[in-house]
Amino acid sequence: MPGPNRILLAIQGFHPHRWYELLSASRPVTLEPDGPADPSIDYAVVWKHRPGVLASLPNLKAIFSIGAGVDHILNDPAVPDVPIVRVVAQNLTQYMVEYVVWRVLDHHRQGALYRTQQPRKIWHEPLQPPADEIAVGIMGLGQLGRAAAKALLALGFKVNGWSRTAHTMEGVAIWHGENELTPFLNATDILVALLPLTPATRGIVDYSLLGKLNRENGLGGAFFVNAGRGQLQKDADIARALDDGLIKEASLDVFETEPLPETSPLWTHPKVFVTPHSAASSDPVHLVPLMLEQMDALERGERLTNIVDRKAGY
Amino acid sequence: MPGPNRILLAIQGFHPHRWYELLSASRPVTLEPDGPADPSIDYAVVWKHRPGVLASLPNLKAIFSIGAGVDHILNDPAVPDVPIVRVVAQNLTQYMVEYVVWRVLDHHRQGALYRTQQPRKIWHEPLQPPADEIAVGIMGLGQLGRAAAKALLALGFKVNGWSRTAHTMEGVAIWHGENELTPFLNATDILVALLPLTPATRGIVDYSLLGKLNRENGLGGAFFVNAGRGQLQKDADIARALDDGLIKEASLDVFETEPLPETSPLWTHPKVFVTPHSAASSDPVHLVPLMLEQMDALERGERLTNIVDRKAGY
Repeated sequence: MPGPNRILLAIQGFHPHRWYELLSASRPVTLEPDGPADPSIDYAVVWKHRPGVLASLPNLKAIFSIGAGVDHILNDPAVPDVPIVRVVAQNLTQYMVEYVVWRVLDHHRQGALYRTQQPRKIWHEPLQPPADEIAVGIMGLGQLGRAAAKALLALGFKVNGWSRTAHTMEGVAIWHGENELTPFLNATDILVALLPLTPATRGIVDYSLLGKLNRENGLGGAFFVNAGRGQLQKDADIARALDDGLIKEASLDVFETEPLPETSPLWTHPKVFVTPHSAASSDPVHLVPLMLEQMDALERGERLTNIVDRKAGY
Repeated sequence: MPGPNRILLAIQGFHPHRWYELLSASRPVTLEPDGPADPSIDYAVVWKHRPGVLASLPNLKAIFSIGAGVDHILNDPAVPDVPIVRVVAQNLTQYMVEYVVWRVLDHHRQGALYRTQQPRKIWHEPLQPPADEIAVGIMGLGQLGRAAAKALLALGFKVNGWSRTAHTMEGVAIWHGENELTPFLNATDILVALLPLTPATRGIVDYSLLGKLNRENGLGGAFFVNAGRGQLQKDADIARALDDGLIKEASLDVFETEPLPETSPLWTHPKVFVTPHSAASSDPVHLVPLMLEQMDALERGERLTNIVDRKAGY
C-alpha cells in the first residue's frame, strides 16, 4: 500500500536518477503509478510522459514541467485539468543566454571561415563589421528571449524582437503579430528562435520565412539560430535555404525529430552547426527546490505561480 | 618643395590606402619623408615603421600609434623624444570584447567537442558547468581588459584580474605584481592575455605559467586565449603545454612571428584555434577623426591626451 503525497516522476528520453534522488530527499517519489487510478499521487513532474498516464489520477493537484517548453504536456489530449507549472530556473536562463551569445558571436565573427582557413594555413583577415552594424532578431520575448536580448545589447548588437503580443523593451525594436513578421525579418541579419511551440508557431521557420531575412550586410548573408523547439522549424527547408544561399549558416540545437536521425543531411552539412538539444539543460539541482517550494506553498493554501495558459499554449 | 604641416604615414605590414584617404581629407599626407630631415613633417601616424625613419625630423610634434600596442614604436632606439599618442577607439574596444567573449564561450561551451562529434553523427550531451562555476582570468586591466571583464561578468562568469599595479573593479578579484601571479593563475580556469608588451611581460606566457592554471573544473582542463601581443607568449611552450595536458585548448590571435610561419605546428594543432591578428583591427574610420582632433587641439595650444608612458612601456 503506497503512502500518500507521492510525486510521480514521468520522464522519457533521459535517465531520471538525479531528479529521483533530489525529489526523494523531501517527498516519496515513484516512476510509475500503482495502476491508472493510483490515489497516492499528488504531483507529477514530467518530461515527455507516456500519453494517458496522468489521465485518471484522482488526487493529482499539479503537473510540473521539466524544461521551459510545455508542448510535450499539452500534446497529450488526456492530460487532466489541473494547473501545469512551468518553472524556469535562473540557471536555465543563464545557459540559454550563453548558448545564444556564443552562436551569434560565432556567426558574427566568422568562425566557420577561420576554421576553413586554418588547416590550409591561410593568414587572411576578412572584412569584419562591428556588432553595431549587425541586427540580431529574436523571435519570442519571454524570459529567455528578453535575457538574450539584454546580453546581445550589452555586446553592442542591434537587437530586434518579434512576439505574438505587443511588448516593449528598452533598446529593442519590437514587432508583433503575423502582420509585422515580414518587416521584422527584413530588418534582421541573424535570426534567433526562442518561441514556444504552439499550433500557431509550429513550422513557422520555413523556406519562405528564411528568405525574408536581410542578406545585404557586412557578413555577406543571413544566419539562423534555433535554441527554442525543433518543431518550430522545417529541417528540410533549412537545408534548402542554405543550399540556395537564402541563409549563410545555421546553428541548430533542436530538430523536428530528436535525436537527429542519422539520415538527416543536417548532420554533415558544411554550413550547419549541430548541438544535441543541450543549449540549456534543466538542471535538477536548481529546479527541484523551486518545484518543492511550490508544492509546499499549495499545501499551505497559497497560490501556484508560473502556471501555463493552456489556451495560449505556454 | 613640400608644403608645411604634413603627416608622415609610416606603415609596414598592410596596405595604408584607407588611412591615406581619410587623413588626406584634412591634411597633406606623405608615405615617405623628403630626406631624413624633412622639415615639412609635423606628425607621424605609424605601425611598425622602418626603424630610424623618425629620427631626424626637425619639426615632428607627435607620433600616433595605429593599434593599441606601442611596442612597435618603442623598439626603435632612434625614436625621437616627442609625445607618443595611443588612441583607442571605442570601436577597437568593442571588437576586442567581441573576440574575447566569443573565444571564452567557445571553450566554455565545448565547441571543439561538438565539432568533433558532429561529422560522426554523435548525439551526446557533455556535462556542462554554468558560467558561474568557471573563472576567467584576465592579465592586463587597461581599457580593453576592463571592458572584457565587464562583458564576462554580465554573462555570469567569475572574473579574476592581474596587472602590474593595484587596481579595483567591482565584481572582479584582482591580484597584482609578480608575487601575486601564481595565486591568480591557481584561481583561473580560462586565461585571457591582454597585457601590453614590455620587457617585463615579454615571454611571460610560458610552459611554467600555463602549468599553474586550474585544471580541476567542470570543463576538465584549463584554456588560454591570447588577444594581446604575440611576444607575450612562447609559441613552442603553448604547443608543449597542450600536448602535456596542462591546457586543454588555446585560441591564438597573435604569435611570436606574424604572419604565423607555415612551419609552425600551431597551424594544424587540433587543440588550437588560429585567427590572423584580426581580433580587433584598428579601423581608420573611427581612429582618424580622433587623431585629427588631437592634432587640432595641440595647435590650439591644448594638451595631448592618451600619451604613452615610455618608462612603463604603454
